[in-house]
Amino acid sequence: MSTVSKAIELLSWFSAERAQIGLAEFQRLTGRDKATTYRYLCALEETGLLEQDQTTRAYRMGPAVLRFAHVREVTVPRRAGVRLVLPQLAEATGELAHASILQGNSLVALTDHASTRYSARVVLTEPELPLHATGSGHAVLAFGEPALLKATLRKLKRHTQNTATNQADLNKTLQAVRETGFGIGNQTYEEGVYGIGVPLFDSSNSVAGAVAVASVATRMNDESIAIIKCELISAARQITHSWGGVVPEALDELWSDTLLSLSNNKLTRRESNA
Amino acid sequence: MSTVSKAIELLSWFSAERAQIGLAEFQRLTGRDKATTYRYLCALEETGLLEQDQTTRAYRMGPAVLRFAHVREVTVPRRAGVRLVLPQLAEATGELAHASILQGNSLVALTDHASTRYSARVVLTEPELPLHATGSGHAVLAFGEPALLKATLRKLKRHTQNTATNQADLNKTLQAVRETGFGIGNQTYEEGVYGIGVPLFDSSNSVAGAVAVASVATRMNDESIAIIKCELISAARQITHSWGGVVPEALDELWSDTLLSLSNNKLTRRESNA
Repeated sequence: MSTVSKAIELLSWFSAERAQIGLAEFQRLTGRDKATTYRYLCALEETGLLEQDQTTRAYRMGPAVLRFAHVREVTVPRRAGVRLVLPQLAEATGELAHASILQGNSLVALTDHASTRYSARVVLTEPELPLHATGSGHAVLAFGEPALLKATLRKLKRHTQNTATNQADLNKTLQAVRETGFGIGNQTYEEGVYGIGVPLFDSSNSVAGAVAVASVATRMNDESIAIIKCELISAARQITHSWGGVVPEALDELWSDTLLSLSNNKLTRRESNA
Repeated sequence: MSTVSKAIELLSWFSAERAQIGLAEFQRLTGRDKATTYRYLCALEETGLLEQDQTTRAYRMGPAVLRFAHVREVTVPRRAGVRLVLPQLAEATGELAHASILQGNSLVALTDHASTRYSARVVLTEPELPLHATGSGHAVLAFGEPALLKATLRKLKRHTQNTATNQADLNKTLQAVRETGFGIGNQTYEEGVYGIGVPLFDSSNSVAGAVAVASVATRMNDESIAIIKCELISAARQITHSWGGVVPEALDELWSDTLLSLSNNKLTRRESNA
Protein backbone atom coordinates (compact mmCIF):
# COMPACT_ATOMS: atom_id res chain seq x y z
CA MET A 1 0.00 0.00 0.00
CA SER A 2 1.40 3.40 -0.99
CA THR A 3 2.01 6.32 1.35
CA VAL A 4 -0.91 8.16 -0.20
CA SER A 5 -3.28 5.22 0.39
CA LYS A 6 -2.07 4.77 3.95
CA ALA A 7 -2.71 8.43 4.71
CA ILE A 8 -6.18 8.41 3.15
CA GLU A 9 -7.02 5.18 5.01
CA LEU A 10 -6.94 7.22 8.24
CA LEU A 11 -10.25 8.77 7.18
CA SER A 12 -11.94 5.36 7.43
CA TRP A 13 -11.61 5.39 11.22
CA PHE A 14 -14.18 8.18 11.56
CA SER A 15 -17.84 7.34 12.04
CA ALA A 16 -20.95 8.86 13.55
CA GLU A 17 -19.90 7.31 16.88
CA ARG A 18 -16.23 8.25 16.54
CA ALA A 19 -16.51 11.90 15.49
CA GLN A 20 -13.06 13.01 16.66
CA ILE A 21 -9.74 11.18 16.80
CA GLY A 22 -6.57 12.57 18.36
CA LEU A 23 -2.99 11.83 17.34
CA ALA A 24 -2.46 9.33 20.17
CA GLU A 25 -5.66 7.46 19.36
CA PHE A 26 -4.67 7.29 15.67
CA GLN A 27 -1.35 5.76 16.70
CA ARG A 28 -3.17 3.21 18.83
CA LEU A 29 -5.68 2.40 16.07
CA THR A 30 -3.16 2.06 13.25
CA GLY A 31 -0.11 0.86 15.14
CA ARG A 32 2.02 3.42 13.26
CA ASP A 33 4.67 5.68 14.75
CA LYS A 34 3.92 9.21 15.87
CA ALA A 35 6.00 11.11 13.29
CA THR A 36 4.50 9.29 10.31
CA THR A 37 0.95 9.55 11.63
CA TYR A 38 1.39 13.25 12.30
CA ARG A 39 2.76 13.81 8.80
CA TYR A 40 -0.29 12.07 7.28
CA LEU A 41 -2.70 14.07 9.44
CA CYS A 42 -1.07 17.35 8.40
CA ALA A 43 -1.42 16.46 4.72
CA LEU A 44 -5.08 15.49 5.17
CA GLU A 45 -5.71 18.72 7.04
CA GLU A 46 -3.92 20.78 4.38
CA THR A 47 -6.29 19.45 1.73
CA GLY A 48 -9.43 19.96 3.83
CA LEU A 49 -10.22 16.25 4.18
CA LEU A 50 -9.60 16.64 7.91
CA GLU A 51 -9.83 19.57 10.27
CA GLN A 52 -8.58 20.03 13.77
CA ASP A 53 -10.91 20.94 16.61
CA GLN A 54 -9.49 24.17 18.05
CA THR A 55 -10.43 23.18 21.59
CA THR A 56 -9.67 19.46 21.82
CA ARG A 57 -6.84 19.43 19.20
CA ALA A 58 -8.40 16.19 17.90
CA TYR A 59 -9.16 15.71 14.22
CA ARG A 60 -12.56 15.37 12.56
CA MET A 61 -13.79 14.88 9.01
CA GLY A 62 -13.13 18.08 7.04
CA PRO A 63 -15.38 20.22 4.84
CA ALA A 64 -13.71 19.22 1.55
CA VAL A 65 -15.54 15.88 1.63
CA LEU A 66 -18.85 17.74 1.25
CA ARG A 67 -17.64 19.42 -1.94
CA PHE A 68 -16.30 16.14 -3.34
CA ALA A 69 -19.54 14.31 -2.47
CA HIS A 70 -21.53 16.97 -4.27
CA VAL A 71 -19.44 16.45 -7.41
CA ARG A 72 -19.95 12.68 -7.10
CA GLU A 73 -23.72 13.04 -6.74
CA VAL A 74 -23.98 15.41 -9.69
CA THR A 75 -21.72 13.41 -11.99
CA VAL A 76 -22.61 9.85 -10.92
CA PRO A 77 -26.19 9.94 -9.61
CA ARG A 78 -27.82 6.88 -8.02
CA ARG A 79 -29.51 5.99 -11.26
CA ALA A 80 -26.13 5.83 -13.02
CA GLY A 81 -24.74 3.44 -10.41
CA VAL A 82 -27.72 1.15 -10.95
CA ARG A 83 -27.70 1.34 -14.75
CA LEU A 84 -24.23 -0.13 -14.92
CA VAL A 85 -25.40 -3.23 -13.07
CA LEU A 86 -28.96 -3.99 -14.25
CA PRO A 87 -28.17 -5.17 -17.81
CA GLN A 88 -25.83 -7.87 -16.45
CA LEU A 89 -28.46 -8.90 -13.90
CA ALA A 90 -31.17 -9.10 -16.58
CA GLU A 91 -29.05 -10.97 -19.11
CA ALA A 92 -27.60 -13.49 -16.63
CA THR A 93 -31.06 -14.34 -15.31
CA GLY A 94 -33.07 -13.88 -18.53
CA GLU A 95 -35.61 -11.85 -16.58
CA LEU A 96 -36.64 -8.31 -15.67
CA ALA A 97 -34.11 -6.63 -13.37
CA HIS A 98 -35.22 -3.53 -11.53
CA ALA A 99 -34.07 -1.22 -8.76
CA SER A 100 -36.12 0.94 -6.44
CA ILE A 101 -35.38 3.61 -3.87
CA LEU A 102 -36.96 4.36 -0.52
CA GLN A 103 -38.59 7.79 -0.45
CA GLY A 104 -40.09 8.47 2.96
CA ASN A 105 -42.24 5.42 3.65
CA SER A 106 -42.63 4.46 -0.02
CA LEU A 107 -40.52 2.26 -2.25
CA VAL A 108 -40.40 3.82 -5.71
CA ALA A 109 -39.13 2.26 -8.97
CA LEU A 110 -35.87 3.89 -10.07
CA THR A 111 -35.04 2.08 -13.30
CA ASP A 112 -35.26 -1.37 -14.87
CA HIS A 113 -33.76 -3.51 -17.62
CA ALA A 114 -35.56 -6.37 -19.35
CA SER A 115 -33.93 -9.41 -20.87
CA THR A 116 -35.30 -10.45 -24.26
CA ARG A 117 -34.80 -14.17 -23.59
CA TYR A 118 -38.49 -15.06 -23.11
CA SER A 119 -41.64 -13.71 -24.77
CA ALA A 120 -43.58 -14.10 -21.53
CA ARG A 121 -41.98 -11.57 -19.23
CA VAL A 122 -42.79 -9.18 -16.43
CA VAL A 123 -43.22 -5.49 -17.14
CA LEU A 124 -43.31 -2.92 -14.32
CA THR A 125 -46.44 -0.81 -14.63
CA GLU A 126 -46.75 0.92 -11.26
CA PRO A 127 -44.25 3.50 -9.99
CA GLU A 128 -44.61 2.30 -6.39
CA LEU A 129 -43.79 -1.15 -5.01
CA PRO A 130 -45.96 -1.94 -1.97
CA LEU A 131 -43.59 -2.76 0.88
CA HIS A 132 -45.75 -5.58 2.30
CA ALA A 133 -46.49 -7.19 -1.06
CA THR A 134 -43.26 -7.37 -3.09
CA GLY A 135 -39.90 -9.14 -2.81
CA SER A 136 -38.19 -5.72 -2.93
CA GLY A 137 -40.48 -4.42 -0.21
CA HIS A 138 -39.86 -7.42 2.03
CA ALA A 139 -36.09 -6.97 1.66
CA VAL A 140 -36.37 -3.28 2.57
CA LEU A 141 -38.70 -3.89 5.53
CA ALA A 142 -36.64 -6.76 6.94
CA PHE A 143 -33.44 -4.69 7.06
CA GLY A 144 -35.00 -1.22 7.46
CA GLU A 145 -35.93 0.92 10.41
CA PRO A 146 -38.66 -0.33 12.79
CA ALA A 147 -40.57 2.92 12.09
CA LEU A 148 -40.89 1.95 8.43
CA LEU A 149 -42.45 -1.39 9.35
CA LYS A 150 -44.75 0.36 11.80
CA ALA A 151 -45.97 2.77 9.11
CA THR A 152 -46.43 -0.12 6.66
CA LEU A 153 -48.54 -2.12 9.12
CA ARG A 154 -51.16 0.64 8.96
CA LYS A 155 -52.04 -0.12 5.34
CA LEU A 156 -51.80 -3.83 4.52
CA LYS A 157 -53.88 -3.81 1.35
CA ARG A 158 -54.73 -7.21 -0.11
CA HIS A 159 -53.44 -7.53 -3.70
CA THR A 160 -53.68 -11.32 -4.14
CA GLN A 161 -54.56 -14.24 -1.89
CA ASN A 162 -50.84 -14.54 -1.03
CA THR A 163 -50.50 -10.96 0.28
CA ALA A 164 -49.69 -10.72 4.00
CA THR A 165 -52.53 -8.59 5.32
CA ASN A 166 -51.96 -8.96 9.05
CA GLN A 167 -49.03 -8.23 11.33
CA ALA A 168 -48.36 -11.88 12.25
CA ASP A 169 -48.12 -13.04 8.62
CA LEU A 170 -45.89 -10.12 7.62
CA ASN A 171 -43.59 -10.63 10.61
CA LYS A 172 -43.23 -14.32 9.70
CA THR A 173 -42.32 -13.35 6.13
CA LEU A 174 -39.78 -10.78 7.32
CA GLN A 175 -38.20 -13.22 9.75
CA ALA A 176 -37.55 -15.56 6.82
CA VAL A 177 -35.97 -12.67 4.88
CA ARG A 178 -33.63 -11.92 7.78
CA GLU A 179 -32.62 -15.58 7.96
CA THR A 180 -32.01 -16.02 4.23
CA GLY A 181 -31.05 -12.51 3.08
CA PHE A 182 -33.67 -12.50 0.29
CA GLY A 183 -37.12 -10.98 0.01
CA ILE A 184 -39.50 -13.26 -1.86
CA GLY A 185 -42.73 -12.06 -3.40
CA ASN A 186 -44.36 -15.22 -4.69
CA GLN A 187 -47.48 -13.83 -6.34
CA THR A 188 -48.03 -11.53 -3.39
CA TYR A 189 -48.66 -8.44 -5.57
CA GLU A 190 -49.96 -9.92 -8.80
CA GLU A 191 -50.99 -13.45 -9.78
CA GLY A 192 -48.30 -15.13 -11.88
CA VAL A 193 -45.44 -12.81 -10.89
CA TYR A 194 -42.55 -14.03 -8.74
CA GLY A 195 -40.05 -11.46 -7.46
CA ILE A 196 -36.83 -11.86 -5.49
CA GLY A 197 -35.32 -8.75 -3.96
CA VAL A 198 -32.33 -7.76 -1.86
CA PRO A 199 -31.75 -4.53 0.07
CA LEU A 200 -29.41 -1.71 -1.01
CA PHE A 201 -27.54 0.52 1.43
CA ASP A 202 -26.26 4.06 1.01
CA SER A 203 -23.66 6.21 2.72
CA SER A 204 -25.83 6.56 5.83
CA ASN A 205 -25.51 2.77 6.19
CA SER A 206 -29.26 2.37 6.24
CA VAL A 207 -31.50 0.68 3.69
CA ALA A 208 -31.93 3.02 0.73
CA GLY A 209 -33.71 0.75 -1.75
CA ALA A 210 -33.74 -2.66 -3.34
CA VAL A 211 -32.62 -4.46 -6.44
CA ALA A 212 -34.79 -7.31 -7.66
CA VAL A 213 -35.52 -9.79 -10.41
CA ALA A 214 -39.14 -10.32 -11.41
CA SER A 215 -40.16 -13.40 -13.34
CA VAL A 216 -43.17 -15.30 -14.57
CA ALA A 217 -43.98 -17.55 -11.59
CA THR A 218 -44.25 -20.75 -13.64
CA ARG A 219 -40.63 -20.33 -14.78
CA MET A 220 -39.26 -20.46 -11.25
CA ASN A 221 -37.47 -23.62 -10.12
CA ASP A 222 -34.53 -24.40 -7.84
CA GLU A 223 -31.98 -23.77 -10.56
CA SER A 224 -33.39 -20.47 -11.85
CA ILE A 225 -33.82 -19.25 -8.26
CA ALA A 226 -30.19 -20.19 -7.50
CA ILE A 227 -28.94 -18.22 -10.50
CA ILE A 228 -31.08 -15.20 -9.59
CA LYS A 229 -29.82 -15.26 -5.98
CA CYS A 230 -26.16 -15.36 -7.05
CA GLU A 231 -26.62 -12.50 -9.51
CA LEU A 232 -28.64 -10.44 -7.02
CA ILE A 233 -25.91 -10.67 -4.38
CA SER A 234 -23.34 -9.45 -6.87
CA ALA A 235 -25.64 -6.63 -8.09
CA ALA A 236 -26.53 -5.49 -4.55
CA ARG A 237 -22.88 -5.37 -3.51
CA GLN A 238 -21.95 -3.31 -6.58
CA ILE A 239 -24.84 -0.85 -6.29
CA THR A 240 -24.36 -0.43 -2.53
CA HIS A 241 -20.68 0.29 -3.16
CA SER A 242 -21.47 2.86 -5.84
CA TRP A 243 -23.93 4.57 -3.47
CA GLY A 244 -21.14 4.94 -0.91
CA GLY A 245 -22.69 2.31 1.36
CA VAL A 246 -21.51 -0.85 3.04
CA VAL A 247 -23.55 -4.07 3.28
CA PRO A 248 -24.02 -4.81 7.03
CA GLU A 249 -21.56 -7.46 8.14
CA ALA A 250 -24.12 -10.07 9.19
CA LEU A 251 -26.00 -9.84 5.89
CA ASP A 252 -22.79 -9.88 3.89
CA GLU A 253 -21.71 -13.09 5.63
CA LEU A 254 -25.13 -14.60 5.02
CA TRP A 255 -24.76 -13.81 1.33
CA SER A 256 -21.23 -15.25 1.22
CA ASP A 257 -22.51 -18.48 2.79
CA THR A 258 -25.33 -18.55 0.24
CA LEU A 259 -22.90 -18.16 -2.66
CA LEU A 260 -20.76 -20.96 -1.26
CA SER A 261 -23.67 -23.35 -0.72
CA LEU A 262 -25.18 -22.57 -4.13
CA SER A 263 -21.89 -23.26 -5.88
CA ASN A 264 -21.50 -26.52 -3.89
CA ASN A 265 -25.00 -27.58 -4.98
CA LYS A 266 -24.08 -26.82 -8.56
CA LEU A 267 -20.98 -28.99 -8.29
CA THR A 268 -23.04 -31.78 -6.68
CA ARG A 269 -25.60 -31.57 -9.47
CA ARG A 270 -22.87 -31.67 -12.10
CA GLU A 271 -21.28 -34.67 -10.44
CA SER A 272 -24.58 -36.54 -10.20
CA ASN A 273 -25.21 -35.73 -13.88
CA ALA A 274 -21.79 -37.01 -14.89
CA MET B 1 3.46 20.30 -0.35
CA SER B 2 3.72 16.63 0.60
CA THR B 3 3.17 13.69 -1.74
CA VAL B 4 -0.10 12.92 0.03
CA SER B 5 -1.37 16.48 -0.43
CA LYS B 6 -0.33 16.54 -4.07
CA ALA B 7 -2.20 13.30 -4.73
CA ILE B 8 -5.36 14.47 -2.96
CA GLU B 9 -5.20 17.81 -4.78
CA LEU B 10 -6.01 15.90 -7.99
CA LEU B 11 -9.59 15.53 -6.70
CA SER B 12 -10.06 19.30 -6.87
CA TRP B 13 -10.00 19.23 -10.68
CA PHE B 14 -13.36 17.45 -10.82
CA SER B 15 -16.55 19.48 -11.07
CA ALA B 16 -20.10 19.10 -12.37
CA GLU B 17 -18.82 20.23 -15.78
CA ARG B 18 -15.66 18.11 -15.66
CA ALA B 19 -17.04 14.75 -14.55
CA GLN B 20 -14.24 12.56 -15.94
CA ILE B 21 -10.53 13.20 -16.32
CA GLY B 22 -8.12 10.85 -18.06
CA LEU B 23 -4.44 10.34 -17.28
CA ALA B 24 -3.28 12.55 -20.18
CA GLU B 25 -5.62 15.37 -19.15
CA PHE B 26 -4.39 15.17 -15.55
CA GLN B 27 -0.82 15.51 -16.81
CA ARG B 28 -1.83 18.55 -18.86
CA LEU B 29 -3.74 20.13 -15.93
CA THR B 30 -1.07 19.58 -13.30
CA GLY B 31 2.10 19.70 -15.39
CA ARG B 32 3.36 16.54 -13.62
CA ASP B 33 4.99 13.57 -15.27
CA LYS B 34 3.02 10.51 -16.31
CA ALA B 35 4.51 7.98 -13.85
CA THR B 36 3.92 10.17 -10.78
CA THR B 37 0.40 11.13 -11.85
CA TYR B 38 -0.46 7.48 -12.52
CA ARG B 39 0.87 6.46 -9.11
CA TYR B 40 -1.31 9.11 -7.42
CA LEU B 41 -4.38 8.04 -9.39
CA CYS B 42 -3.88 4.39 -8.43
CA ALA B 43 -3.69 5.31 -4.74
CA LEU B 44 -6.82 7.45 -4.96
CA GLU B 45 -8.61 4.63 -6.75
CA GLU B 46 -7.43 2.06 -4.20
CA THR B 47 -9.04 4.09 -1.40
CA GLY B 48 -12.30 4.67 -3.30
CA LEU B 49 -11.83 8.43 -3.61
CA LEU B 50 -11.62 7.91 -7.38
CA GLU B 51 -12.98 5.25 -9.68
CA GLN B 52 -12.19 4.44 -13.26
CA ASP B 53 -14.86 4.38 -15.94
CA GLN B 54 -14.70 0.88 -17.41
CA THR B 55 -15.49 2.17 -20.90
CA THR B 56 -13.55 5.42 -21.24
CA ARG B 57 -10.69 4.48 -18.82
CA ALA B 58 -11.01 8.03 -17.45
CA TYR B 59 -11.33 8.71 -13.72
CA ARG B 60 -14.29 10.13 -11.85
CA MET B 61 -15.07 10.95 -8.22
CA GLY B 62 -15.38 7.69 -6.27
CA PRO B 63 -18.05 6.39 -3.89
CA ALA B 64 -15.92 6.74 -0.74
CA VAL B 65 -16.54 10.51 -0.75
CA LEU B 66 -20.24 9.85 -0.11
CA ARG B 67 -19.45 7.83 3.00
CA PHE B 68 -17.01 10.46 4.28
CA ALA B 69 -19.49 13.27 3.59
CA HIS B 70 -22.14 11.41 5.55
CA VAL B 71 -19.80 11.18 8.54
CA ARG B 72 -19.04 14.90 8.23
CA GLU B 73 -22.73 15.82 8.10
CA VAL B 74 -23.57 13.64 11.09
CA THR B 75 -20.64 14.76 13.22
CA VAL B 76 -20.37 18.43 12.16
CA PRO B 77 -23.86 19.55 11.10
CA ARG B 78 -24.49 23.00 9.61
CA ARG B 79 -25.55 24.38 12.95
CA ALA B 80 -22.22 23.37 14.46
CA GLY B 81 -20.29 25.17 11.71
CA VAL B 82 -22.26 28.32 12.44
CA ARG B 83 -22.06 28.09 16.24
CA LEU B 84 -18.29 28.31 16.15
CA VAL B 85 -18.47 31.65 14.35
CA LEU B 86 -21.45 33.56 15.76
CA PRO B 87 -20.03 34.36 19.24
CA GLN B 88 -17.02 36.12 17.69
CA LEU B 89 -19.32 38.01 15.31
CA ALA B 90 -21.60 39.08 18.17
CA GLU B 91 -18.81 40.10 20.54
CA ALA B 92 -16.76 42.00 17.93
CA THR B 93 -19.80 44.00 16.83
CA GLY B 94 -21.60 44.21 20.19
CA GLU B 95 -24.84 43.21 18.45
CA LEU B 96 -27.06 40.22 17.67
CA ALA B 97 -25.43 37.81 15.21
CA HIS B 98 -27.66 35.29 13.49
CA ALA B 99 -27.57 32.75 10.70
CA SER B 100 -30.38 31.45 8.53
CA ILE B 101 -30.79 28.71 5.95
CA LEU B 102 -32.75 28.61 2.73
CA GLN B 103 -35.45 25.92 2.82
CA GLY B 104 -37.33 25.86 -0.46
CA ASN B 105 -38.36 29.47 -1.05
CA SER B 106 -38.14 30.46 2.62
CA LEU B 107 -35.27 31.77 4.69
CA VAL B 108 -35.44 30.23 8.16
CA ALA B 109 -33.50 31.20 11.31
CA LEU B 110 -30.91 28.54 12.20
CA THR B 111 -29.28 29.92 15.34
CA ASP B 112 -28.19 33.23 16.86
CA HIS B 113 -25.87 34.70 19.47
CA ALA B 114 -26.46 37.99 21.29
CA SER B 115 -23.80 40.29 22.65
CA THR B 116 -24.49 41.70 26.10
CA ARG B 117 -22.76 45.03 25.36
CA TYR B 118 -25.95 47.12 25.13
CA SER B 119 -29.24 46.93 27.01
CA ALA B 120 -31.16 47.98 23.92
CA ARG B 121 -30.72 45.10 21.56
CA VAL B 122 -32.48 43.13 18.85
CA VAL B 123 -34.10 39.78 19.64
CA LEU B 124 -35.25 37.45 16.87
CA THR B 125 -38.89 36.53 17.42
CA GLU B 126 -40.03 35.09 14.10
CA PRO B 127 -38.64 31.80 12.71
CA GLU B 128 -38.83 33.08 9.12
CA LEU B 129 -36.96 36.05 7.64
CA PRO B 130 -38.95 37.58 4.76
CA LEU B 131 -36.65 37.60 1.73
CA HIS B 132 -37.80 40.99 0.44
CA ALA B 133 -37.71 42.71 3.82
CA THR B 134 -34.47 41.77 5.61
CA GLY B 135 -30.74 42.26 5.07
CA SER B 136 -30.30 38.47 5.10
CA GLY B 137 -33.09 38.06 2.57
CA HIS B 138 -31.64 40.71 0.26
CA ALA B 139 -28.23 38.98 0.37
CA VAL B 140 -29.81 35.62 -0.48
CA LEU B 141 -32.01 37.01 -3.27
CA ALA B 142 -29.18 39.01 -4.86
CA PHE B 143 -26.90 35.98 -5.18
CA GLY B 144 -29.56 33.26 -5.42
CA GLU B 145 -31.40 31.60 -8.29
CA PRO B 146 -33.69 33.75 -10.46
CA ALA B 147 -36.54 31.34 -9.60
CA LEU B 148 -36.25 32.31 -5.94
CA LEU B 149 -36.64 36.01 -6.79
CA LYS B 150 -39.57 35.19 -9.06
CA ALA B 151 -41.34 33.30 -6.25
CA THR B 152 -40.61 36.13 -3.80
CA LEU B 153 -42.07 38.77 -6.13
CA ARG B 154 -45.46 37.09 -5.75
CA LYS B 155 -45.77 38.07 -2.09
CA LEU B 156 -44.23 41.45 -1.33
CA LYS B 157 -45.97 42.11 1.97
CA ARG B 158 -45.48 45.57 3.46
CA HIS B 159 -43.92 45.40 6.95
CA THR B 160 -42.80 49.02 7.35
CA GLN B 161 -42.79 52.09 5.16
CA ASN B 162 -39.27 51.09 4.02
CA THR B 163 -40.27 47.64 2.72
CA ALA B 164 -39.84 47.18 -1.03
CA THR B 165 -43.33 46.18 -2.13
CA ASN B 166 -42.93 46.36 -5.89
CA GLN B 167 -40.60 44.71 -8.37
CA ALA B 168 -38.80 47.92 -9.39
CA ASP B 169 -37.92 48.88 -5.81
CA LEU B 170 -36.76 45.38 -4.93
CA ASN B 171 -34.65 45.10 -8.09
CA LYS B 172 -32.99 48.42 -7.25
CA THR B 173 -32.21 47.16 -3.75
CA LEU B 174 -30.77 43.88 -5.06
CA GLN B 175 -28.65 45.69 -7.65
CA ALA B 176 -27.02 47.63 -4.80
CA VAL B 177 -26.40 44.34 -2.93
CA ARG B 178 -24.66 42.87 -5.98
CA GLU B 179 -22.48 45.98 -6.29
CA THR B 180 -21.50 46.12 -2.62
CA GLY B 181 -21.72 42.48 -1.48
CA PHE B 182 -23.98 43.36 1.48
CA GLY B 183 -27.71 43.10 2.03
CA ILE B 184 -29.02 46.04 4.03
CA GLY B 185 -32.35 45.96 5.81
CA ASN B 186 -32.70 49.49 7.19
CA GLN B 187 -35.99 49.22 9.08
CA THR B 188 -37.52 47.28 6.19
CA TYR B 189 -39.00 44.59 8.44
CA GLU B 190 -39.50 46.38 11.74
CA GLU B 191 -39.16 50.04 12.73
CA GLY B 192 -35.93 50.66 14.61
CA VAL B 193 -34.11 47.50 13.48
CA TYR B 194 -31.14 47.70 11.11
CA GLY B 195 -29.76 44.45 9.68
CA ILE B 196 -26.75 43.75 7.49
CA GLY B 197 -26.49 40.31 5.88
CA VAL B 198 -24.18 38.38 3.58
CA PRO B 199 -24.88 35.17 1.67
CA LEU B 200 -23.57 31.72 2.62
CA PHE B 201 -22.77 29.02 0.08
CA ASP B 202 -22.73 25.24 0.47
CA SER B 203 -21.12 22.36 -1.40
CA SER B 204 -23.49 22.78 -4.34
CA ASN B 205 -21.95 26.26 -4.77
CA SER B 206 -25.34 27.91 -4.58
CA VAL B 207 -26.68 30.23 -1.89
CA ALA B 208 -27.67 28.15 1.12
CA GLY B 209 -28.39 30.84 3.69
CA ALA B 210 -27.15 34.06 5.22
CA VAL B 211 -25.26 35.33 8.23
CA ALA B 212 -26.24 38.74 9.56
CA VAL B 213 -25.90 41.28 12.31
CA ALA B 214 -29.04 43.01 13.57
CA SER B 215 -28.79 46.22 15.52
CA VAL B 216 -30.87 49.02 16.95
CA ALA B 217 -31.07 51.46 14.01
CA THR B 218 -30.10 54.53 16.02
CA ARG B 219 -26.76 52.90 16.91
CA MET B 220 -25.69 52.58 13.29
CA ASN B 221 -23.01 54.94 12.00
CA ASP B 222 -20.14 54.73 9.51
CA GLU B 223 -17.80 53.22 12.05
CA SER B 224 -20.14 50.57 13.47
CA ILE B 225 -21.21 49.62 9.93
CA ALA B 226 -17.54 49.29 8.91
CA ILE B 227 -16.84 46.96 11.85
CA ILE B 228 -19.94 44.86 11.12
CA LYS B 229 -18.99 44.53 7.44
CA CYS B 230 -15.45 43.37 8.25
CA GLU B 231 -16.68 40.81 10.75
CA LEU B 232 -19.46 39.59 8.45
CA ILE B 233 -17.00 38.91 5.63
CA SER B 234 -14.85 36.84 7.95
CA ALA B 235 -17.87 34.97 9.35
CA ALA B 236 -19.33 34.25 5.90
CA ARG B 237 -16.02 32.92 4.60
CA GLN B 238 -15.64 30.63 7.62
CA ILE B 239 -19.21 29.29 7.57
CA THR B 240 -19.16 28.77 3.79
CA HIS B 241 -15.91 26.85 4.17
CA SER B 242 -17.33 24.66 6.94
CA TRP B 243 -20.38 23.92 4.76
CA GLY B 244 -18.07 22.65 2.02
CA GLY B 245 -18.81 25.67 -0.18
CA VAL B 246 -16.75 28.28 -1.97
CA VAL B 247 -17.58 31.99 -2.11
CA PRO B 248 -18.04 32.89 -5.82
CA GLU B 249 -14.91 34.55 -7.13
CA ALA B 250 -16.51 37.90 -8.05
CA LEU B 251 -18.11 38.29 -4.61
CA ASP B 252 -14.94 37.20 -2.84
CA GLU B 253 -12.95 39.87 -4.70
CA LEU B 254 -15.60 42.46 -3.87
CA TRP B 255 -15.24 41.55 -0.19
CA SER B 256 -11.44 41.69 -0.36
CA ASP B 257 -11.66 45.17 -1.89
CA THR B 258 -14.09 46.19 0.85
CA LEU B 259 -11.75 44.97 3.60
CA LEU B 260 -8.88 46.89 2.01
CA SER B 261 -10.83 50.11 1.64
CA LEU B 262 -12.28 49.87 5.17
CA SER B 263 -8.82 49.40 6.68
CA ASN B 264 -7.48 52.33 4.63
CA ASN B 265 -10.31 54.53 5.94
CA LYS B 266 -9.47 53.46 9.46
CA LEU B 267 -5.83 54.44 8.95
CA THR B 268 -6.90 57.79 7.47
CA ARG B 269 -9.17 58.44 10.44
CA ARG B 270 -6.39 57.56 12.87
CA GLU B 271 -3.98 59.88 11.11
CA SER B 272 -6.44 62.78 11.10
CA ASN B 273 -7.07 62.15 14.81
CA ALA B 274 -3.34 62.18 15.56
